[in-house]
Amino acid sequence: MRTLITGGTVLSSTGAVEADVLVDGERVAAVAAPGVFGEADTVLDAAGKYVLPGGIDAHTHMEMPFGGTFSSDTFETGTRAAAWGGTTTIIDFAVQPKGSSLLSTLDNWHEKADGDCAIDYGFHMIVSDVNDATLKEMESCVDAGVSSFKMFMAYPGVFYSTDGEILRAMHKAAGIGATIMMHAENGIAIDQLVAQALAEGKGEPEQHGLTRPPELEGEATSRAITLAKVTASPLYIVHLSAAQALAAVAAARDDGQNVFAETCPQYLYLSIEDLAKPDFEGAKYVASPPLRPKEHQTDLWRGLRTNDLSVVSTDHCPFCFKDQKELGRGDFSKIPNGMPGVEHRMDLLHQGVVAGEISLARWVETCSTTPARMFGLYPRKGVIAPGADADIVIYDPTAEQTISAATHHMAVDYSAYEGLRITGKVETVLSRGRVVVDRGEYHGSAGHGRFLSRDLCQYLS
Amino acid sequence: MRTLITGGTVLSSTGAVEADVLVDGERVAAVAAPGVFGEADTVLDAAGKYVLPGGIDAHTHMEMPFGGTFSSDTFETGTRAAAWGGTTTIIDFAVQPKGSSLLSTLDNWHEKADGDCAIDYGFHMIVSDVNDATLKEMESCVDAGVSSFKMFMAYPGVFYSTDGEILRAMHKAAGIGATIMMHAENGIAIDQLVAQALAEGKGEPEQHGLTRPPELEGEATSRAITLAKVTASPLYIVHLSAAQALAAVAAARDDGQNVFAETCPQYLYLSIEDLAKPDFEGAKYVASPPLRPKEHQTDLWRGLRTNDLSVVSTDHCPFCFKDQKELGRGDFSKIPNGMPGVEHRMDLLHQGVVAGEISLARWVETCSTTPARMFGLYPRKGVIAPGADADIVIYDPTAEQTISAATHHMAVDYSAYEGLRITGKVETVLSRGRVVVDRGEYHGSAGHGRFLSRDLCQYLS
Amino acid sequence: MRTLITGGTVLSSTGAVEADVLVDGERVAAVAAPGVFGEADTVLDAAGKYVLPGGIDAHTHMEMPFGGTFSSDTFETGTRAAAWGGTTTIIDFAVQPKGSSLLSTLDNWHEKADGDCAIDYGFHMIVSDVNDATLKEMESCVDAGVSSFKMFMAYPGVFYSTDGEILRAMHKAAGIGATIMMHAENGIAIDQLVAQALAEGKGEPEQHGLTRPPELEGEATSRAITLAKVTASPLYIVHLSAAQALAAVAAARDDGQNVFAETCPQYLYLSIEDLAKPDFEGAKYVASPPLRPKEHQTDLWRGLRTNDLSVVSTDHCPFCFKDQKELGRGDFSKIPNGMPGVEHRMDLLHQGVVAGEISLARWVETCSTTPARMFGLYPRKGVIAPGADADIVIYDPTAEQTISAATHHMAVDYSAYEGLRITGKVETVLSRGRVVVDRGEYHGSAGHGRFLSRDLCQYLS
Amino acid sequence: MRTLITGGTVLSSTGAVEADVLVDGERVAAVAAPGVFGEADTVLDAAGKYVLPGGIDAHTHMEMPFGGTFSSDTFETGTRAAAWGGTTTIIDFAVQPKGSSLLSTLDNWHEKADGDCAIDYGFHMIVSDVNDATLKEMESCVDAGVSSFKMFMAYPGVFYSTDGEILRAMHKAAGIGATIMMHAENGIAIDQLVAQALAEGKGEPEQHGLTRPPELEGEATSRAITLAKVTASPLYIVHLSAAQALAAVAAARDDGQNVFAETCPQYLYLSIEDLAKPDFEGAKYVASPPLRPKEHQTDLWRGLRTNDLSVVSTDHCPFCFKDQKELGRGDFSKIPNGMPGVEHRMDLLHQGVVAGEISLARWVETCSTTPARMFGLYPRKGVIAPGADADIVIYDPTAEQTISAATHHMAVDYSAYEGLRITGKVETVLSRGRVVVDRGEYHGSAGHGRFLSRDLCQYLS
Repeated sequence: MRTLITGGTVLSSTGAVEADVLVDGERVAAVAAPGVFGEADTVLDAAGKYVLPGGIDAHTHMEMPFGGTFSSDTFETGTRAAAWGGTTTIIDFAVQPKGSSLLSTLDNWHEKADGDCAIDYGFHMIVSDVNDATLKEMESCVDAGVSSFKMFMAYPGVFYSTDGEILRAMHKAAGIGATIMMHAENGIAIDQLVAQALAEGKGEPEQHGLTRPPELEGEATSRAITLAKVTASPLYIVHLSAAQALAAVAAARDDGQNVFAETCPQYLYLSIEDLAKPDFEGAKYVASPPLRPKEHQTDLWRGLRTNDLSVVSTDHCPFCFKDQKELGRGDFSKIPNGMPGVEHRMDLLHQGVVAGEISLARWVETCSTTPARMFGLYPRKGVIAPGADADIVIYDPTAEQTISAATHHMAVDYSAYEGLRITGKVETVLSRGRVVVDRGEYHGSAGHGRFLSRDLCQYLS
Repeated sequence: MRTLITGGTVLSSTGAVEADVLVDGERVAAVAAPGVFGEADTVLDAAGKYVLPGGIDAHTHMEMPFGGTFSSDTFETGTRAAAWGGTTTIIDFAVQPKGSSLLSTLDNWHEKADGDCAIDYGFHMIVSDVNDATLKEMESCVDAGVSSFKMFMAYPGVFYSTDGEILRAMHKAAGIGATIMMHAENGIAIDQLVAQALAEGKGEPEQHGLTRPPELEGEATSRAITLAKVTASPLYIVHLSAAQALAAVAAARDDGQNVFAETCPQYLYLSIEDLAKPDFEGAKYVASPPLRPKEHQTDLWRGLRTNDLSVVSTDHCPFCFKDQKELGRGDFSKIPNGMPGVEHRMDLLHQGVVAGEISLARWVETCSTTPARMFGLYPRKGVIAPGADADIVIYDPTAEQTISAATHHMAVDYSAYEGLRITGKVETVLSRGRVVVDRGEYHGSAGHGRFLSRDLCQYLS
Repeated sequence: MRTLITGGTVLSSTGAVEADVLVDGERVAAVAAPGVFGEADTVLDAAGKYVLPGGIDAHTHMEMPFGGTFSSDTFETGTRAAAWGGTTTIIDFAVQPKGSSLLSTLDNWHEKADGDCAIDYGFHMIVSDVNDATLKEMESCVDAGVSSFKMFMAYPGVFYSTDGEILRAMHKAAGIGATIMMHAENGIAIDQLVAQALAEGKGEPEQHGLTRPPELEGEATSRAITLAKVTASPLYIVHLSAAQALAAVAAARDDGQNVFAETCPQYLYLSIEDLAKPDFEGAKYVASPPLRPKEHQTDLWRGLRTNDLSVVSTDHCPFCFKDQKELGRGDFSKIPNGMPGVEHRMDLLHQGVVAGEISLARWVETCSTTPARMFGLYPRKGVIAPGADADIVIYDPTAEQTISAATHHMAVDYSAYEGLRITGKVETVLSRGRVVVDRGEYHGSAGHGRFLSRDLCQYLS
Repeated sequence: MRTLITGGTVLSSTGAVEADVLVDGERVAAVAAPGVFGEADTVLDAAGKYVLPGGIDAHTHMEMPFGGTFSSDTFETGTRAAAWGGTTTIIDFAVQPKGSSLLSTLDNWHEKADGDCAIDYGFHMIVSDVNDATLKEMESCVDAGVSSFKMFMAYPGVFYSTDGEILRAMHKAAGIGATIMMHAENGIAIDQLVAQALAEGKGEPEQHGLTRPPELEGEATSRAITLAKVTASPLYIVHLSAAQALAAVAAARDDGQNVFAETCPQYLYLSIEDLAKPDFEGAKYVASPPLRPKEHQTDLWRGLRTNDLSVVSTDHCPFCFKDQKELGRGDFSKIPNGMPGVEHRMDLLHQGVVAGEISLARWVETCSTTPARMFGLYPRKGVIAPGADADIVIYDPTAEQTISAATHHMAVDYSAYEGLRITGKVETVLSRGRVVVDRGEYHGSAGHGRFLSRDLCQYLS
């Protein structure tokens, strides 16, 4: 079964070429000058369109348990929405409950995802419980294709690890070449600010932002970098939102340390003003780190250009406004933390291309190629090249669309970008050679997506 | 006429894939999974070898007039030596004499190179004389495929431009999207130090290094960056050698400015200790900026990893020891400035891969892909992709060789790396589809190489 | 002849004590607890007042030749105005004309000032012509009590020195322990911007500011710092006005380099908005460096607190609006550069105390004690201590006054602070024990002031 | 009772004057030109000597409970040793036990010190237990003359406070103008490194240094600075020892934050090589932060010159080698932390003057004037001025001495500087007008010293 994509502009992380792409079964067979291949079982006409490697969203939380509820997208609904948006790989987080083992956690997550996913998926492991057994299991996780371990400097009493625990895990990671991913906010200090705000009767969603000042993200980022330096561990800062944190990452990178960072579309487009929307509307925008004052957006776009921010992920973690977000009416600290986003990352970053913030090459790089290399998936993913999985998006750069909960495919009752009009739209999506989305119709199926056993980060020096 | 390169590991700036490369005429027709194409007119077996885009040396000076003499490689000998070393494109510098026009200068350089080159070539333009006419001509140069203009903060009375002249040229460059390349050393201050040294009777080659301290490269680099900021001009720092200059570049890049820099192999491998060799031997190592104390090497390798140094060029500008370098016996300021190097850049940087300093992907990126994008040649050059010129190197990563003047192909009577044993060696080189070097035999010819009309820099934001 | 100042609060650079001050002849005889001395020839009641060491204005230009005219204050009128404002020492600049010697220049300036000054005075030497003879004369200048040498990176063709000349002079200064003072603006680049503005028909005073962007002060400051580092010369940046320059100074000082800087009241209180006043009114505010956008004021006040700005001087260089400033109607480049200010420095900085920008101790430190130490006058000047010259100001911290050309004592027909209402006022001024100003009456005389032979800077490490 | 000190060179933080000092009772009555006062009850001849304000040691721990033992100097022996060394004021730390109140702690410390001290003394308060009651009590402490509160980021389980507790205390401090003093080492991470070292069988004293790397002092310092920024609290970093911490302090100070730091003589003169001395000798040098590699010394001396280090204190906390230090044989973590030093601070810093590291003025400033201003004692202490306490040292700058346990007056069985030969020696010491040390004889008495009720820091902006 051969599919030929003809007439398109094939994008990579370094630029664009006019070429045809031949897919044979699940993989790319060739990239060729137009006309080299005359026929195939299926021909997809991509004239006037971009042909790019499918997006990789390295940070999602499907059906994640959080404070007695679950994020509202299952692996089935979430990966389907991802496919709609041109994302053909997600890396979700398995969440170790305190007292349990990493491997049993991994088993649980395999069970959740197996047979449900529309696209391929991998796992990171959230380490909540650092002890001799857990550290030992990190090796087995790497063998099982899970080579990145997330820790939290936020959320004391839940996921929080002490600096001592982080140090231990980093020592282990350094020894086995694994990457430590860090939620870098000073949760201990933040909890104090939260308590003060609540004691003063300040319960509205905006307080979520005010009690988590950007300085405390900058501080935790610096601290994580120092701990990584002391242990020689690779470090990946997740969902970087604050200029202060960016400055810390840039300094460490200038210094040659193995420090990387991602940001998310919400930090590029939304701000603390959204959190301050009246009538509890702000709750829709509650995630951690919080949305920042607008001036941080300029810094983040610049960080994407300078590669101090190497990856754009979504931190997709949707909770419905009704019944879920509403748990925190009157007490912002009880609002489930998270926002939907897996469907619109490729579009929102393409909008950055339209606006002149980033180049086409950089769009592909931050949304697909770099996440693949960062998380040990390249060249299977992240590139259109012979032998690579045929995860391919045909993208219409001139189509217009309006983002809305009424039309999106995520299982959540609101959109953070409701009414936003943008240019560019996914036309066709192939996952491992199979057309799963085509001109507004869904052809995928739960269970098509397979687990991806990942190698180590490919950027380490 | 179709050539098939089979069984190799095809390298790009993002990694490696096992693939065959089909060349049709002068261009790449396809990159395909092994076996997709069964036959061709010629089949080159690349099993166990790297297949990479030909090297691009963005900084050479063939038969350059300098102080009454000429650099010893002609376009014929120099491009042939480049081909031997896996470099399939050079960008040489046309040198405007004071009082002449840019376009007549360009004509002269076309005349020098036309019919002589073994590989493709482009030109940068050295602007020595900034005036209304010259500035106007910069537009014509861009139209003529010369989109980068080099200026000197060094060499007062020769190539030196004042800050006012630089500002004017930068304003022009900003207006037309061209790039200003800068030799960033404070030549006015240096000349004073040189005069002092000579007045004190210090004439030996080592003084060349001591009178050009790294602080004065850092200063000039910072100044160039400020002038570029004031004018919003793109800036490319040539042959960066000093940690202080690197720090200035890194800061500007963190800040999002369009500032780029290259370094050269001699700054990565050689040091001021070479300049201090007895019996005038040090003269072989006289180039500007000078070789630095060894500790700078560590910073430069790090800069290559962090991309604060984006390109490796050679500043190839050979002068024979006999008769040429010897002009400066007793007065180091009369030693012709320049070192040979065009032949060994690919090897010396591959040695950086062997030594763990940079990755394979970064080797290709700094030596081929980035120079192509930086100087408006991508995707014609710098990548193995459909439609690209078939400038391809088959490289044996395990072969060993010893660098020596006895065996090199440059027209110069010494090697700066005499006796250096390294791992990796060019096996076969294709220039626009034609095999020009193969297993130690030369099959190229003068005049095969064509002039490359270049676009603007593709990195600007 | 003994004078006793009783009941006041005696200020120093470290704080305040309640004490009486006994003056015997020209000098301070004792500082004593109230009542220790019961009687004296004269008793000045300072109850409720500050008693502080007389101000030292380390940067004035009396009757300075500039573009065919002279600054409008003579040594007589200028020093009298200084005395009215609580300044009891000025250090003025002798200006070497190109082609003349430093010592003859010094003779000329002695002649100008001798017998004319109301208060003591010293000289810095402006070096316009760097050559072997001049450099040699720098030693004689130091012997003659002139230990600081000013150079210009601005004003090409007038005072401008090349980086090579600066390097030479700095080498000399380093050898003899003298200080190089620097007007740090990139005059070469600025002249280009000025020429462009004029060519575009932009002639109004505001252009003076727009053609001298703060980046070019930052650049020149950095460059001066690098040249000082290469030569190990002490460096004092005069009239620092831009945040960029302050950042460069702060970095060098953190690094332990002997780098110092002053700012002036006009940069703390006025801005480029004043330069943009209509009807050529902006010409009143033309000085170099130019007034900056308001946000720089915040940085400069902070710099005064952090001691990255160690001294406040005035750069007093008045030109009458009528006939002098008017020379530049239609061509801002012909407006004489300079503003009046010697009379109000102490008041304007005390206003900074009132506004909470600096402490009382810091007021005395930046306006008196530090200039004395910086320029080799301590403890003769800058402190109220036994043996020190009795240059003493009794200051009423609660009196209010309005600054106006109608009431000021400078020989200039406008005030840059016209109508500004401030708190605090000089009540009595002693110069070497003699009351020269008292409750609104002038008791001084031309010729009372004596030349001060200065030692080297007392801060060098 | 009047004492006249004649013929000396009176030092202050800005320089030196030749003057006599008249003491009347406990206070300075006058500073006068030589000969102004002819007679007195006692005349002390200071010809050829320095006359300086008595030293203020702002960081001592007399008879401090630590791990079941006590530091070996009582208030009696410790203050006597201080007097011998020219220190006339100490500020010791009252240590709140967990579960107790601040005010009862203060009572206890008053009881310990009352009637025992040879010189005046004040207290800082160590806050071990942050809760509503404690925070409230901070106000009462300020009223009781204790305006500075020390917290620990080190020593988990003992003095350690969480970032949340620090934040709370800083909020309080900011509200009442008090200063937070910080022991800035990341104790949580360090404890992990200690546990690892011990688990690997590494028990020798050198491990104390290796498990507390300078990066973790830098990190904690940065974190404290961020928390102080978020709360707008004044911050004083105690015993800064690492270049990384100094860089963090310098950056915050450039930024205008109210951040201050002290270092101690041991970090200026001793290094981790001392910790590595064989036969458990290294235990003598165990203190926290630990002695650093020698290159940090250069940075610390520079920090003293740049005022990024404003104060020199001793962190005097002696434990006898025998019986006390020996508790940690085989397990470095059980060695009592602390070193003796109160007696030699003035001498060791004068040695820095002799060596050209700091100026005479800076010696007085860092050792006396600044601590007085920093901790609300000026002008009662820290200066020789009318009304100030007559705490005066007559210092012979040419005398030589050798430091040794055989001759020192501290109650500890070793000297960290055993055998060190230095230039300069205390000749006479007055405490509140009384001669307590004179030419090698002790004339003081326990109980002469009085408690000093301190104001707030006098540097805040």
